[in-house]
Amino acid sequence: MARFGYQSPLCKQSDEYENSRSMKFLRNTWYVAAWAETLGPGEMLARTFLNEPVVLFRDATGTPHALSDRCPHRFAPLSRGRLVDGNRVKCAYHGLEFSTDGACVHNPHGTAPKAPVRAYPLVERHSILWIWMGDPARADASAIPAYPMLDPDAEAQVSARDGITMAANYELITDNLLDLSHVSFLHEGILGNEDTIAAEIDVKRDGSRLRVGRLMADVPVPGMFDLLYKQDGRRVDLWNVMTWDAPGCMVNDAGVTDPGAPREAGTGIYGHHFLTPETDRTTFYHFAAVRQNPLPAPEGRAEELRDRLTELRRIAFAEQDAPMIEAQQLRRDAAEAEGVAPVLLGIDKGPAAYKRILQELIDADG
Amino acid sequence: MARFGYQSPLCKQSDEYENSRSMKFLRNTWYVAAWAETLGPGEMLARTFLNEPVVLFRDATGTPHALSDRCPHRFAPLSRGRLVDGNRVKCAYHGLEFSTDGACVHNPHGTAPKAPVRAYPLVERHSILWIWMGDPARADASAIPAYPMLDPDAEAQVSARDGITMAANYELITDNLLDLSHVSFLHEGILGNEDTIAAEIDVKRDGSRLRVGRLMADVPVPGMFDLLYKQDGRRVDLWNVMTWDAPGCMVNDAGVTDPGAPREAGTGIYGHHFLTPETDRTTFYHFAAVRQNPLPAPEGRAEELRDRLTELRRIAFAEQDAPMIEAQQLRRDAAEAEGVAPVLLGIDKGPAAYKRILQELIDADG
Amino acid sequence: MARFGYQSPLCKQSDEYENSRSMKFLRNTWYVAAWAETLGPGEMLARTFLNEPVVLFRDATGTPHALSDRCPHRFAPLSRGRLVDGNRVKCAYHGLEFSTDGACVHNPHGTAPKAPVRAYPLVERHSILWIWMGDPARADASAIPAYPMLDPDAEAQVSARDGITMAANYELITDNLLDLSHVSFLHEGILGNEDTIAAEIDVKRDGSRLRVGRLMADVPVPGMFDLLYKQDGRRVDLWNVMTWDAPGCMVNDAGVTDPGAPREAGTGIYGHHFLTPETDRTTFYHFAAVRQNPLPAPEGRAEELRDRLTELRRIAFAEQDAPMIEAQQLRRDAAEAEGVAPVLLGIDKGPAAYKRILQELIDADG
Repeated sequence: MARFGYQSPLCKQSDEYENSRSMKFLRNTWYVAAWAETLGPGEMLARTFLNEPVVLFRDATGTPHALSDRCPHRFAPLSRGRLVDGNRVKCAYHGLEFSTDGACVHNPHGTAPKAPVRAYPLVERHSILWIWMGDPARADASAIPAYPMLDPDAEAQVSARDGITMAANYELITDNLLDLSHVSFLHEGILGNEDTIAAEIDVKRDGSRLRVGRLMADVPVPGMFDLLYKQDGRRVDLWNVMTWDAPGCMVNDAGVTDPGAPREAGTGIYGHHFLTPETDRTTFYHFAAVRQNPLPAPEGRAEELRDRLTELRRIAFAEQDAPMIEAQQLRRDAAEAEGVAPVLLGIDKGPAAYKRILQELIDADG
Repeated sequence: MARFGYQSPLCKQSDEYENSRSMKFLRNTWYVAAWAETLGPGEMLARTFLNEPVVLFRDATGTPHALSDRCPHRFAPLSRGRLVDGNRVKCAYHGLEFSTDGACVHNPHGTAPKAPVRAYPLVERHSILWIWMGDPARADASAIPAYPMLDPDAEAQVSARDGITMAANYELITDNLLDLSHVSFLHEGILGNEDTIAAEIDVKRDGSRLRVGRLMADVPVPGMFDLLYKQDGRRVDLWNVMTWDAPGCMVNDAGVTDPGAPREAGTGIYGHHFLTPETDRTTFYHFAAVRQNPLPAPEGRAEELRDRLTELRRIAFAEQDAPMIEAQQLRRDAAEAEGVAPVLLGIDKGPAAYKRILQELIDADG
Repeated sequence: MARFGYQSPLCKQSDEYENSRSMKFLRNTWYVAAWAETLGPGEMLARTFLNEPVVLFRDATGTPHALSDRCPHRFAPLSRGRLVDGNRVKCAYHGLEFSTDGACVHNPHGTAPKAPVRAYPLVERHSILWIWMGDPARADASAIPAYPMLDPDAEAQVSARDGITMAANYELITDNLLDLSHVSFLHEGILGNEDTIAAEIDVKRDGSRLRVGRLMADVPVPGMFDLLYKQDGRRVDLWNVMTWDAPGCMVNDAGVTDPGAPREAGTGIYGHHFLTPETDRTTFYHFAAVRQNPLPAPEGRAEELRDRLTELRRIAFAEQDAPMIEAQQLRRDAAEAEGVAPVLLGIDKGPAAYKRILQELIDADG
């Protein structure tokens, strides 16, 4: 890659940021492996997390497990095999069988070798399968962030539990989500607009949790919120508060109400966004939206409104965020090779704050 | 690629195996370049062997030849050119002509440069074109393994002379073929089954030739052999003897007979498997099956049986072996980067034995 | 990549050539960025030149501009944004605005940072947009080569202004164009034939301009020239003079006349060929043909002749040159890894001469 003869005069001010870009993955933490509903009883699912091939499976009792998807004998993918007796993974290549803790418990050709596959702690909670890629001895399920609205028996109105894979490192997607200001531009008309730009961004750290929020008073109502609210196009107060838990779990509390009215009189969503690195350059992005204080749809228009919400969400994810972030990734790689760091603005307070926390956690990760 | 924090406790026992995985290609040996029938008189065929582009062609007298497929002038592929006077390769770019021994014999623009292309010894035998990628002075056609059943004038019943390219190093495919035990699992129901697992594997070295065999007495008949034999699903004695000649030529003597009966009373095949490295990560796999002691098909069912045999073979190659081996390759590359070696079992006697012979030959290859 | 055990005995004579193959891009020079007609008023066009992403746009007054297609803030591609007030590029991600000289003139979130994007000198001349990838202070529009026949108001008969991207370094394509001899082989029957081989190649350097020409007296008329001339298949004098200006601009003066007759009594074309590196391994190839001394088409056959000319040109570019050059690139990369240099012939005088000039210019490029 050619080097530019030119370099931004602000580069040197961004050294701290530059350093943070070489962050390693945090290992001793919980990552979203899959929506729980993806994995039926007796089913297996092959995925890669943090560059490691993993096979997820649910035993006959319904308990989910995760093993390295690589037989120690000849490196065959265990996910091409099958479950036997409901709780052992049998390699399709030579019939070695592994228990849910990864021990090799059967070798049809002789004594079972002391050749376990790695077992990853896996916990089902809030309708999500959570995987721990670090030291199993340190896996503590109480450290899983709480998302009670997603519990299977919760009474919340939840959208489809969905997901995409983006061709970008998860940091770039986190930057995007904790940077509320981009909504006014990239999602103009749908989630924000020019009148929402001036809003002050408020960043609050609480331990290793981060809250980034802004309130936009008396602004034109963006399209998606108009659909959720009164469909009258009138001005509103618009709020947006993103809560981040390391390394990639976010909830976006976003809604509208009449100017000056309390939030309880308005409506909105809790957008749940969960990022899990698949590789250095690809990310599993799981998401689901929970309605807050939902209003009834006008008589006979429920289906039409639902379809329009689905379409707006598709546009925001697939036509606006994904192509922008994936193009950014390519340019960031080139800039890195040139030694060019991005120029920080005031609106980057949120991303800068989470990067500091994440770096602290990675430094302490051992 | 991230490194695992975990490593199999058996890794250190596999050091010898790990070393063998960095084997270079054996050069002073015969490789199958193509089925002879692939190359008609006056035709050219471009292929890559051991990472080198080669053009095969057959002159007007029917003799096949092999030259480097790279003009020394401007590196144009000679295979884009044509034969002139039935025995010279003319470069399509600037008209340089090369004789069958690689000498530049005509330069239309002036004196022919002393710039030969490399000529590879090529021999047609047993309906196969054999190429020698090493020192031409050491090429000895008597070292070509004998496959008289494939001779054009042999009276054997030979299947289509076929081939595929697999996205894996040829060693992984050799491992697969010399590891008879995988048949019971990966090809369960077609070529083996659970009852065939216990059979002892017998490994015999004879100079640089290897025989790996097993006899499975009184077992349920696998589907493909039932088709070849009596189509009655009754139990049989099943044998399987693989003969390997370095570096990648194998014949699989496999058949069934009534329990306790002599082999001559049964039926089977001689499966011919020829592996030639195209690149470090892709392999030409030529194969053909010769029927041994063929039984007549039941009245009016010959075509149906042939179609089912063809389909079973397609499943075994394309749906069972190829995807498994290609997935193995990816995981083996990652394991190698991590310094993790595979765990050897008793059933790996065959692969381990050929690797030792091959390493000896490579060490002596100069 | 494996090394050949064999090496051409002429390799050592080509050391000078070998060195020239590691040439860097010339930066302080004009490159063809696009045909001017490609970029309408208010339009943006994303392209990569010399490995750098560039956004071309035309302001409301019609003046074209070029900026780095990478916002300094978060590396978003500016080409995904839009023009505001006809002359500012607004980033789609966060709304930063850049003037035509690259200055950040508006930050909707606060003070505009002193974070310009690089602006590239861009000049519209001869219906072409010319870009300067080097030091802007050294950009001198008078150094743009003159192609008055392509001027929008010229009275010349110009073919479609066309272009392709080839998967090869621009040097290989330049070699091809300055090597007149290949026409007799690769384009045999269309642009040359065996009778045109003997013609002496004449190379003249004039400053940093090069002329490579040959005259082929009394030869069978190649197909394309027959179409342009009398469609009678009679023998002609054929001339071919290529003028090269660094680093990748060429005009091919080519035509036919009756044997012994003056050129003015014949007909031909001025083929304009402009090469611009997109990356190390891909090239933008812009071309257009201007008729010289055009003859009227026979009554009622104008359309048929035009279609056949278009088809012959497509064959020459897409079926003859492109696959040959792209295959050469792959083999040249392998040869380079082996330390094997190409063997030079007398017909390489043209390519060798331009490489010397280009190397001088690159050495002086600073």
